[in-house]
Amino acid sequence: MTAHRPRVLLLHGPNLNLLGERDPATYGATTLEQIEERTTVLGEELGAEVRCAQSNSEGVLIDLVHQARHDDGIIFNPGAYAHYSYALRDAVDAVAGLGVPCIEVHISNVHAREPFRHTSVTAAVSQGYLCGHGVFGYELALRAVLNRIEERRRTAE
Amino acid sequence: MTAHRPRVLLLHGPNLNLLGERDPATYGATTLEQIEERTTVLGEELGAEVRCAQSNSEGVLIDLVHQARHDDGIIFNPGAYAHYSYALRDAVDAVAGLGVPCIEVHISNVHAREPFRHTSVTAAVSQGYLCGHGVFGYELALRAVLNRIEERRRTAE
Amino acid sequence: MTAHRPRVLLLHGPNLNLLGERDPATYGATTLEQIEERTTVLGEELGAEVRCAQSNSEGVLIDLVHQARHDDGIIFNPGAYAHYSYALRDAVDAVAGLGVPCIEVHISNVHAREPFRHTSVTAAVSQGYLCGHGVFGYELALRAVLNRIEERRRTAE
Amino acid sequence: MTAHRPRVLLLHGPNLNLLGERDPATYGATTLEQIEERTTVLGEELGAEVRCAQSNSEGVLIDLVHQARHDDGIIFNPGAYAHYSYALRDAVDAVAGLGVPCIEVHISNVHAREPFRHTSVTAAVSQGYLCGHGVFGYELALRAVLNRIEERRRTAE
Amino acid sequence: MTAHRPRVLLLHGPNLNLLGERDPATYGATTLEQIEERTTVLGEELGAEVRCAQSNSEGVLIDLVHQARHDDGIIFNPGAYAHYSYALRDAVDAVAGLGVPCIEVHISNVHAREPFRHTSVTAAVSQGYLCGHGVFGYELALRAVLNRIEERRRTAE
Amino acid sequence: MTAHRPRVLLLHGPNLNLLGERDPATYGATTLEQIEERTTVLGEELGAEVRCAQSNSEGVLIDLVHQARHDDGIIFNPGAYAHYSYALRDAVDAVAGLGVPCIEVHISNVHAREPFRHTSVTAAVSQGYLCGHGVFGYELALRAVLNRIEERRRTAE
Amino acid sequence: MTAHRPRVLLLHGPNLNLLGERDPATYGATTLEQIEERTTVLGEELGAEVRCAQSNSEGVLIDLVHQARHDDGIIFNPGAYAHYSYALRDAVDAVAGLGVPCIEVHISNVHAREPFRHTSVTAAVSQGYLCGHGVFGYELALRAVLNRIEERRRTAE
Amino acid sequence: MTAHRPRVLLLHGPNLNLLGERDPATYGATTLEQIEERTTVLGEELGAEVRCAQSNSEGVLIDLVHQARHDDGIIFNPGAYAHYSYALRDAVDAVAGLGVPCIEVHISNVHAREPFRHTSVTAAVSQGYLCGHGVFGYELALRAVLNRIEERRRTAE
Amino acid sequence: MTAHRPRVLLLHGPNLNLLGERDPATYGATTLEQIEERTTVLGEELGAEVRCAQSNSEGVLIDLVHQARHDDGIIFNPGAYAHYSYALRDAVDAVAGLGVPCIEVHISNVHAREPFRHTSVTAAVSQGYLCGHGVFGYELALRAVLNRIEERRRTAE
Amino acid sequence: MTAHRPRVLLLHGPNLNLLGERDPATYGATTLEQIEERTTVLGEELGAEVRCAQSNSEGVLIDLVHQARHDDGIIFNPGAYAHYSYALRDAVDAVAGLGVPCIEVHISNVHAREPFRHTSVTAAVSQGYLCGHGVFGYELALRAVLNRIEERRRTAE
Amino acid sequence: MTAHRPRVLLLHGPNLNLLGERDPATYGATTLEQIEERTTVLGEELGAEVRCAQSNSEGVLIDLVHQARHDDGIIFNPGAYAHYSYALRDAVDAVAGLGVPCIEVHISNVHAREPFRHTSVTAAVSQGYLCGHGVFGYELALRAVLNRIEERRRTAE
Amino acid sequence: MTAHRPRVLLLHGPNLNLLGERDPATYGATTLEQIEERTTVLGEELGAEVRCAQSNSEGVLIDLVHQARHDDGIIFNPGAYAHYSYALRDAVDAVAGLGVPCIEVHISNVHAREPFRHTSVTAAVSQGYLCGHGVFGYELALRAVLNRIEERRRTAE
Repeated sequence: MTAHRPRVLLLHGPNLNLLGERDPATYGATTLEQIEERTTVLGEELGAEVRCAQSNSEGVLIDLVHQARHDDGIIFNPGAYAHYSYALRDAVDAVAGLGVPCIEVHISNVHAREPFRHTSVTAAVSQGYLCGHGVFGYELALRAVLNRIEERRRTAE
Repeated sequence: MTAHRPRVLLLHGPNLNLLGERDPATYGATTLEQIEERTTVLGEELGAEVRCAQSNSEGVLIDLVHQARHDDGIIFNPGAYAHYSYALRDAVDAVAGLGVPCIEVHISNVHAREPFRHTSVTAAVSQGYLCGHGVFGYELALRAVLNRIEERRRTAE
Repeated sequence: MTAHRPRVLLLHGPNLNLLGERDPATYGATTLEQIEERTTVLGEELGAEVRCAQSNSEGVLIDLVHQARHDDGIIFNPGAYAHYSYALRDAVDAVAGLGVPCIEVHISNVHAREPFRHTSVTAAVSQGYLCGHGVFGYELALRAVLNRIEERRRTAE
Repeated sequence: MTAHRPRVLLLHGPNLNLLGERDPATYGATTLEQIEERTTVLGEELGAEVRCAQSNSEGVLIDLVHQARHDDGIIFNPGAYAHYSYALRDAVDAVAGLGVPCIEVHISNVHAREPFRHTSVTAAVSQGYLCGHGVFGYELALRAVLNRIEERRRTAE
Repeated sequence: MTAHRPRVLLLHGPNLNLLGERDPATYGATTLEQIEERTTVLGEELGAEVRCAQSNSEGVLIDLVHQARHDDGIIFNPGAYAHYSYALRDAVDAVAGLGVPCIEVHISNVHAREPFRHTSVTAAVSQGYLCGHGVFGYELALRAVLNRIEERRRTAE
Repeated sequence: MTAHRPRVLLLHGPNLNLLGERDPATYGATTLEQIEERTTVLGEELGAEVRCAQSNSEGVLIDLVHQARHDDGIIFNPGAYAHYSYALRDAVDAVAGLGVPCIEVHISNVHAREPFRHTSVTAAVSQGYLCGHGVFGYELALRAVLNRIEERRRTAE
Repeated sequence: MTAHRPRVLLLHGPNLNLLGERDPATYGATTLEQIEERTTVLGEELGAEVRCAQSNSEGVLIDLVHQARHDDGIIFNPGAYAHYSYALRDAVDAVAGLGVPCIEVHISNVHAREPFRHTSVTAAVSQGYLCGHGVFGYELALRAVLNRIEERRRTAE
Repeated sequence: MTAHRPRVLLLHGPNLNLLGERDPATYGATTLEQIEERTTVLGEELGAEVRCAQSNSEGVLIDLVHQARHDDGIIFNPGAYAHYSYALRDAVDAVAGLGVPCIEVHISNVHAREPFRHTSVTAAVSQGYLCGHGVFGYELALRAVLNRIEERRRTAE
Repeated sequence: MTAHRPRVLLLHGPNLNLLGERDPATYGATTLEQIEERTTVLGEELGAEVRCAQSNSEGVLIDLVHQARHDDGIIFNPGAYAHYSYALRDAVDAVAGLGVPCIEVHISNVHAREPFRHTSVTAAVSQGYLCGHGVFGYELALRAVLNRIEERRRTAE
Repeated sequence: MTAHRPRVLLLHGPNLNLLGERDPATYGATTLEQIEERTTVLGEELGAEVRCAQSNSEGVLIDLVHQARHDDGIIFNPGAYAHYSYALRDAVDAVAGLGVPCIEVHISNVHAREPFRHTSVTAAVSQGYLCGHGVFGYELALRAVLNRIEERRRTAE
Repeated sequence: MTAHRPRVLLLHGPNLNLLGERDPATYGATTLEQIEERTTVLGEELGAEVRCAQSNSEGVLIDLVHQARHDDGIIFNPGAYAHYSYALRDAVDAVAGLGVPCIEVHISNVHAREPFRHTSVTAAVSQGYLCGHGVFGYELALRAVLNRIEERRRTAE
Repeated sequence: MTAHRPRVLLLHGPNLNLLGERDPATYGATTLEQIEERTTVLGEELGAEVRCAQSNSEGVLIDLVHQARHDDGIIFNPGAYAHYSYALRDAVDAVAGLGVPCIEVHISNVHAREPFRHTSVTAAVSQGYLCGHGVFGYELALRAVLNRIEERRRTAE
């Protein structure tokens, strides 16, 4: 764990490619591209390199999480897969076991919506969870994951 | 919403590519190709253009639903994904929010089979649901979706 | 099962006599009389005789279902009885066992309403189920039941 | 909603015709006739006309609730139907939607009895609920429904 | 409780009027008329007067149970109402509180059928319950109710 | 239990100090002070002395209920504690066991709100329960508790 | 299945050896010995040979059920094992599969007691079930099992 | 909502006064005083005034939340009350209804601990939720609440 | 109930014969023989005669409980049978009904282990329950049962 | 952990201040003062100093448990808070983590009462649990906590 | 753990003595004796000594499992006890803790049968589980247990 | 079904590509490549051709199962999809219906892990299930599937 500039994967799950177009009352008018751009820019300000990816496919998301084991951290909005994808949970858990922290983000306050959204099967294996902050949640998540990476470095020294 | 010939996506989910071959006692002897052909022909008779697609992949199905937001309506047999895919539910809901109605179809009477088939997480966001009519259900679904499209046009005028 | 003109019972359960007056946002402005008339007319166009009946009483509905064992098919909107009347379920099942198919119809999309409406104890014994199509659902149901009757004749030949 | 003398339906459901005879430890010694007479007399004192009806039949009760949409309010003791009759719930809800408030009354404290009595499926659509006050509950219910009627008049002015 | 010839009501609930015609694999080929005749004849042999009634209506059944409080005992096959009719339960309970025992009978073994049939809400207030004996169950029920009546007489002496 | 002027505690639980300010669509514009004043005035008209208290603390409410065992009755709006405070239930039950009746009141119709509000753990030990009548419910509760007190005096004579 | 005098096993499960001594309010004053004697005598009158056995041990009861596959029928009061012994259920089911019917008997009305007694895991594999008839239930059970044996003989002829 | 320096309440619930002393493996070695000091200092850097309070009492916490309706935002770690205190939920909801956003924080990842900690009854009424970030979560929460306050000001302009 | 030296049965259920050998981290290093000896010695000091028995068989344990109805009290560690043996519950209940108190003991704190151990079906019929005290729990149980015996004697005088 | 005279907190929760006055059939006629006095006296005999406290407030009880971390052990009757106060559970757990054992006591046999009393959320973090022994349970608890303190000393030596 | 020829106990639970006779459609025509002989012979081929035992008694099975702690491994078909016998679970767990692995076998595919068979309370403490392989499952189980024994030896070296 | 050398698909689901790298305490140090190689080699020894495939995508796995309907058998480790993928269940069921047996394998003992792993929705449609044997489970699964193939051939002859 050398002192390189930390590399973070910003990963989005199903339907988030429609952000800005889909149900703006719940998700706001910001598009996924804008979120990715802002987070990348903020990453640079904070000394981190942010890579971005999105997929609607559970399998591709698992592949992307696996590949991130060569990065330093993950910011993950798993969308609705959060509520039932034990396969994604196992992927996040495996990568966490290899020392790569994952911060789970949801834009809306899932606790204030349908009951099925109150359960997150992936949250238990994340190193931090946040929801309901709108798109500002990504700034929080970036700070959170960088803090985790920094903590790991301090511990490793 | 101009008065063009309505375009409808006929979308099939997992295992439905095996229709005709798989468990004929439950699903009948008709193949997916025959269903697609008959529905396309009937669509032409009723003045509509029917496109057909099938995938076993949840992610590809989400992509196809998203693309259908440029069509006028969807006939969707989500197969077993109906019982747990909240990601597909969100996709259908997003597209419905953009004005594209979706009719959910199941060939067999899911209420008369295993308990897990009694729950549909996608039905709540459809504009119409039908099951148990065998392959005749596709004719019903086509009429239903065209009626919804017509209703929207009348409302929009 | 001779080739007579098929006779179909269009049966409505509790509170549907108030259609047009009750909660138009959910059920629309069409009255029960209009539904019965339209379905009867369409029946004639499709070569079928449609009888109509409505009752708020579970017992009378069971009697009516029993009497329909001398008809060729039933279109049944059981209203709220769908959610708990095992006695009606047994009636529909008994008549189905005697060769008279029943199509269950709900005007609204019950899956998008209160949780108690997500369960139908009568659907398991129907030969077809549909909901959420508004009053157009009756046209679909009529086509569905005639298709079932036709299928039975082809099989019987 | 003119300023006529308010008309209130006092409606009793199953087994309440046996009041006074059935299980006096739970329900007291007062008969249904006495309750109806006392409530009618009190109604006159308070300037209201009270009509009374009782039936053991869910269907007849639904009919009576429907007819009460031409009255100004309902006092309803649904007996055991409170615990499972979604059809009655829909009837009360329909009539409430037409501006006729319904007050649900139970003589005994249902919360202190068998678990199945702790759930009321009709309470959610009433404009007021009370239980456990013995036969005095009818005086309370009458005052409650007249208050609701008066409120509606004030609002309508 | 004088030593008159005991009067017993043999009461049948919904769909049992179709016995012999409905699903003979489950219910056998005997008709309701035959059951009533055999039970009446056996009643005469055993010194009892058996009255018979059947209704598909919950309300009418409650009325009939109420009237039986002037009889000495009831043999009751509540059909599917056994599984949810708390109103019938209250009726049987009220009459039992007045000293009229009720024996609940089911022809088929309800425990070996669908889960909803495993629950009887009326059984808790009966003075005896039996199921699965086919039509022979009525002979057992008659003997059981006469034994209960005899016991009450002995106790009352 | 001498014939003194009855003393009644009007007790309010958590968040009810914000009445009039908090969510007027649900709770109305009347403040707690106004409710207390009106109930005290009505109490004087009906020959009773009404003391008032409010606390957001479960422990203080238990203390107040305990002290009310030297009064003649309690009108209690436990707010959200109704849904889970078994400690308050025990307090009300203990005081009821000492002959002081408690009437539970909720301003809104809790049965029409979130599921957690459908359960009241305190209702089972009250001598009367009412909800959904708005602030008029306090007049009803006052009449109800005075009726209970009067009944106890008649019984004691 | 020759026309020999039918042999029936009267089998009692745990705690029934204490009958007459244990909780007479629930189980009556009759001892197990008296039940066995009366049933044996009645068996002789009805042309059957009744063997009797009792054990508190699940394993011994299974052994006894197995041995009864060389008899013609079983009357079984499984006591509390009815509520959870899937091993006994399998034993009864195995023997039923070999043509030996089993009638399950409970002296008390288990449906009116604690909730755990409302479930019988053995009832589903019996050829008849009865409860709540007190010790008279054994006469009913004997008649029931002899009727089943007779039916089997008629069928076998 | 004038452009004053925003005032934020940092509120801690039960057992958090023991931070640093209690179970450091789960909660870390930082004391509550240190958290309060760091958050206050960071508040000053970010232009906000942070007030701090802690109580083990549900009632006092409700009082403190109520008083915060004169502040601009709340950072709230409700400790174990999050899992069952509907009274606190109502308090947070009332204050949110008056325009004061609340951010809920948990130091540990509650989703990875005992099942009872997976449910938060207060989260549904917060304007943002985060857990599992350790004491760094307070920096995130402060940024989140200031963002919400800024959003409200922009909207109000 | 003469003033003889009280006789107490110390009864152990399944797997407790392995104490000292099995999972010492949970159950400690003391053997069953040592527990029996220590309890017997302490019994003598306290003026009681302690008999000891152990069995892995539910049936034998029921027999032993039955025989203890000629003793004055029982100390019972039912092991895992506590969690499901309704037959043992009935045995303990029967003997309790004959005046022989039973104290249930568990060595480990069952509430801190797997969920299935949180339920005791036998505890409801014991006259005292204790768990989690290690082998010292037997001294507590002996004192508890002797106290119960003494109470019964005082009452009987 | 020096060999000072052990200090034990005897702590009582809600409604236990009414002991002797409240429901004597369940809780006996002994007052809380008598229990405290007897336990203190017995403590002196056994070489321990017993401090006593009671509160109806969850928050105050948490404070008292926290303060007891400077004592050697706790005897805690949490009353109804045992069934839902996760905040108290965390307090007891925190103090246990600092080496202060807690013995939970209930006077009545909670397993034989209402279902909500069958669950204890605090028991899992106690070092010993007992219920159903009446007021004698305090003697048992005192011996139990002193045994735990003695064990800790032996281990620490 | 010397390199002696491994000794394996082949243990069968309730009703498996009827194999070959009981329900051949589910369990096949092979008898228990044949299974025991084949497994013993195969054991010899693979260098192991196989002892065989069967009992219908839970207690005897626990005894046999205990005795097997002097063997090297167990192949256990617990029959229906798998679904509820926590006492057997504890026995297997105790022996596993002493280094004797247990392989659980079921002949039929329990997951495809009644819901109660989908749960195995003993599986969690086995070192390997298999079902649905018919009698061939015993060959698999023997290979599995020998592999476990071999692994233990390698580890111990 | 000619006597060709049997072709078996060894199929692995999500996250199993990380075997050897992910959580070795649970899954061991063997890599997927090693498992595939060993199973292929053993297959050759046993006269079978083993093809290997792995995917993290549910859809690709369904495709692979479908293609295996031209093989003779499947060994399938579905990973976490076993716990919720009804679509995969339908795929396995369809192929089983075409005569291709599937053996489900899990490396770890899923019954000893988190509750969500105790449920397998795919197991019900497999022809054999095994778990907890570590990587040795693949040898067992290969023998099991070859046995099933051999059985089918014998039956077909």
